[in-house]
Amino acid sequence: MLKHFKVPDDVAVLVEISKLRNATEQVFIKCGVPEAEAQLGADVLMFADESGIDTHGVSNMLRSYVAQYNSDSLNPTPKIQIIKETPSTATIDGDGGLGLMIAPKAMDIAIQKAKDVGTGVVSVRNSGHLGAAGYHAMMAADQDMIGWCMTAGGKAMVPTFGAEAQIGTNPIAFAAPGNNQPAFMFDAAMTSIAGNKIGLANRMGKGMSPGWVAHEDGVPDMDGGAVADFAANSMRMQLPLGSTRELGSHKGYGLGVMVDILCGQLSFAPGFGSLERTRRGHFVAAYSVDAFGDVEEFKENMDGMLKGLADTRPMPGEERVLYAGLPEHEVRIERRETGIPLHPEVIDWFRDICAEFEIPFDLV
Amino acid sequence: MLKHFKVPDDVAVLVEISKLRNATEQVFIKCGVPEAEAQLGADVLMFADESGIDTHGVSNMLRSYVAQYNSDSLNPTPKIQIIKETPSTATIDGDGGLGLMIAPKAMDIAIQKAKDVGTGVVSVRNSGHLGAAGYHAMMAADQDMIGWCMTAGGKAMVPTFGAEAQIGTNPIAFAAPGNNQPAFMFDAAMTSIAGNKIGLANRMGKGMSPGWVAHEDGVPDMDGGAVADFAANSMRMQLPLGSTRELGSHKGYGLGVMVDILCGQLSFAPGFGSLERTRRGHFVAAYSVDAFGDVEEFKENMDGMLKGLADTRPMPGEERVLYAGLPEHEVRIERRETGIPLHPEVIDWFRDICAEFEIPFDLV
Repeated sequence: MLKHFKVPDDVAVLVEISKLRNATEQVFIKCGVPEAEAQLGADVLMFADESGIDTHGVSNMLRSYVAQYNSDSLNPTPKIQIIKETPSTATIDGDGGLGLMIAPKAMDIAIQKAKDVGTGVVSVRNSGHLGAAGYHAMMAADQDMIGWCMTAGGKAMVPTFGAEAQIGTNPIAFAAPGNNQPAFMFDAAMTSIAGNKIGLANRMGKGMSPGWVAHEDGVPDMDGGAVADFAANSMRMQLPLGSTRELGSHKGYGLGVMVDILCGQLSFAPGFGSLERTRRGHFVAAYSVDAFGDVEEFKENMDGMLKGLADTRPMPGEERVLYAGLPEHEVRIERRETGIPLHPEVIDWFRDICAEFEIPFDLV
Repeated sequence: MLKHFKVPDDVAVLVEISKLRNATEQVFIKCGVPEAEAQLGADVLMFADESGIDTHGVSNMLRSYVAQYNSDSLNPTPKIQIIKETPSTATIDGDGGLGLMIAPKAMDIAIQKAKDVGTGVVSVRNSGHLGAAGYHAMMAADQDMIGWCMTAGGKAMVPTFGAEAQIGTNPIAFAAPGNNQPAFMFDAAMTSIAGNKIGLANRMGKGMSPGWVAHEDGVPDMDGGAVADFAANSMRMQLPLGSTRELGSHKGYGLGVMVDILCGQLSFAPGFGSLERTRRGHFVAAYSVDAFGDVEEFKENMDGMLKGLADTRPMPGEERVLYAGLPEHEVRIERRETGIPLHPEVIDWFRDICAEFEIPFDLV
């Protein structure tokens, strides 16, 4: 996590995990979500909070979900339907529910298919926000499988050379288990920065950094700062990973389109054929390691690789080299001990929403 | 293709495709490769040349393959073996052959499995250079499938914050068919620039551009130029896509590790558990569109999306917005008319190798 986005220690309020989880569940239930689904949704959010993925945790996302339930743009009791199925694939309609709860069901199907025939690949349409994609990918890794999760929707990324946003930030998550080493868990938007990090940076009073967004005419802002207001208002002019053509933005853009195809086209999601998407599409896949070879040997080899990466000699000014999933693992250990640091403003929101929903408030 | 890498028009020699293809086949045959394999290898190289992917065409790659056959580091007559198999997966040992010819066989297996059970996922170990990964991904797209191809090996990419290269440039290729629009075909290294573009830039007398490589101590070179000699000699300090942590290099690095896992760990390739790889690993996958829904509807939707992307309003100074696969398609139309522009130095190499191998030389 970039220090940039950390709640400053001097204002952070540490909240017990069980209390935050319980409050989150209660909020979901008051939105009309059945209890088991509310627990699942809270689990996905808490995973992000525990792992230091604050952009996708309770503080940054729950209020947006509540607003969407309240405005009927999210269905609290979706009837999830399998539209088409083969031994290794399924196409699912999420019936306008929240992706947080739909993606784990899609991944359950993928994992079962991978147990049966080696791999399971599931595309999802008509869904809502996915939460931290890494959660869903990790479901497969926990079963000694390779897990994949992607999500697409909205317009936030400006194609290379373009002057308007055309696709979403379109993150890719990928997980693979180690043995003693923490699992490899990659989870990143294909824009140079995650969409809601822009909102979070804004709430922290920070401007845009170089390479994050395009100017209004599409020209990449490589100086930073100047376009903060514009970006904060629209969040719709984000640069692809690579930022400029010279630094490889066509690669971030191409990967973004790949995610759009897997999530939107492969699920036959409404609007993805015209770039006018309404809801979100997801893609999850599980590849059983056992189908390819010996699981223990794989995990030993993974350990060797991951340890080797973490042992890479660091450049001047850096203490160590990381791999995706390692810092999240370390933050989880720490936060399960200390609790989740929340901005006082988030505590206030919880106090208000608990009063409104007539839920007892006991976070602090 | 960056203009940077184009053979200057005033020195380029246009060579007939059929002649270049034939000469390439003959060179492979003289290296001990059976005729059918030689034709397949030439087809992969010619696809790159025809598509303007000059880094992976005859001019840039064939001499390296010849050197590897001559030094016995490539096996001209590999016995390719399926080590393990399930209805949707296979693990293949390439017996030290050239990836150019092994990957199409792996993709054939993936496509057949996708026809049978919806998807086919194949990992390959003990292989050599893959050629243009897009060729293999396009094999699936030509069958109305989504195609994936990746390759990993060597040490070229410096992890974020690292001072030494640990993984390869690890490209990802992904293809999906349109109807009237040219197929989407993405093919890019997860370093900010493809490995052999550095060699090619060097041959053109160009220095390193900002964001391509790290200095010897690991610090990203964001000014360019200074490290050209260092990089040209070792090619082993390339920056991940994103170049710096602030611009998202941890994403390029993470995607690179993902490719290493899919190609190296999932195929149980020697050395991938210790970051000391000898040969290369590949990953190919085919997802049958038919398994997810109606193929014609999918291709219509793809057309809408791809046309929409190409119709994106351009930023000042740019004429148009592209999508991956579109410029390659346009270059193919042009070069199939005009022939392949080769640097005179490449013609000289062909003249020499034809003399050495006692092959009639008729390129010009």
